[in-house]
Amino acid sequence: MTQQQPMALPPYHDVVHAQWVDYNGHMRDAFYMLVFSYATDALLDFIGLDAAARTARKRSVYTLEAHLLYLHETRQGARLRVDTRLIAYDAKRLHLYLEMFADPHSAPVAVSEQMLLHVDTRGPRAVAFDSDVNQRLEALATAAAVLPPPAHAGRVIGLARK
Amino acid sequence: MTQQQPMALPPYHDVVHAQWVDYNGHMRDAFYMLVFSYATDALLDFIGLDAAARTARKRSVYTLEAHLLYLHETRQGARLRVDTRLIAYDAKRLHLYLEMFADPHSAPVAVSEQMLLHVDTRGPRAVAFDSDVNQRLEALATAAAVLPPPAHAGRVIGLARK
Repeated sequence: MTQQQPMALPPYHDVVHAQWVDYNGHMRDAFYMLVFSYATDALLDFIGLDAAARTARKRSVYTLEAHLLYLHETRQGARLRVDTRLIAYDAKRLHLYLEMFADPHSAPVAVSEQMLLHVDTRGPRAVAFDSDVNQRLEALATAAAVLPPPAHAGRVIGLARK
Repeated sequence: MTQQQPMALPPYHDVVHAQWVDYNGHMRDAFYMLVFSYATDALLDFIGLDAAARTARKRSVYTLEAHLLYLHETRQGARLRVDTRLIAYDAKRLHLYLEMFADPHSAPVAVSEQMLLHVDTRGPRAVAFDSDVNQRLEALATAAAVLPPPAHAGRVIGLARK
């Protein structure tokens, strides 16, 4: 296969909505995951698995696993940016690393690591990516390969690791 | 300290709401986290850190980290049950393991592992649990200690581990 030119995914932008704020006055933990979920949708659109293609091709993408690390509180109205990178992929799976930024912090306010599975919705059953999608994945992976290593990937939860 | 009698947390119950369903006809990944977040709130109420106590004592609990493993799809209207157990705790932190069940599956449809931090909201800064809360934590941990080991704790995300 021809080496794909690097292709960077544009950041996903959102804002902390009033209904996402909990009793602390901060965005509730689950709504960080919702923003990451929307950012993942944007990646699917970008690689050619948008809603129209999913319907036409009988394809979808399921989340197998998601890890979230919370680094700073964010308040209602804060503008959010999510940078999503493809850490790795195989014939049917995507391993993503997502960083969420919010004013006034220069470092991420949260990061997420996710594993997604490509499925044929007629099963549903796991199925290999189509070749056009695979080419875009290769281009995304090429772009991600030059970035500094993810600061918070591969984490295990446990008290002993304080 | 006197050994506390085991005290089991009642399950948390919910239902898959229409606005939680995504393009697949399944509950979106982020709303599993919302249900787990509500189940965690129920645990906080149970140990004496309900809304009134949080306000009166200037205390709160922040989520430091959350890991989610998705095992089965769930559809709109499905009745959900979350069993929450305290795996471990120290002076300021809780390590929880939550299992979500939904008809018609006898095994969990999702599990989550979480680390929470007890804070004094006047900082905010990490602070030790008050003694009455600590006694309830001891009672919960005693109840959890007799359960079978968590089936899906300590996970790392990665393609090589297929």
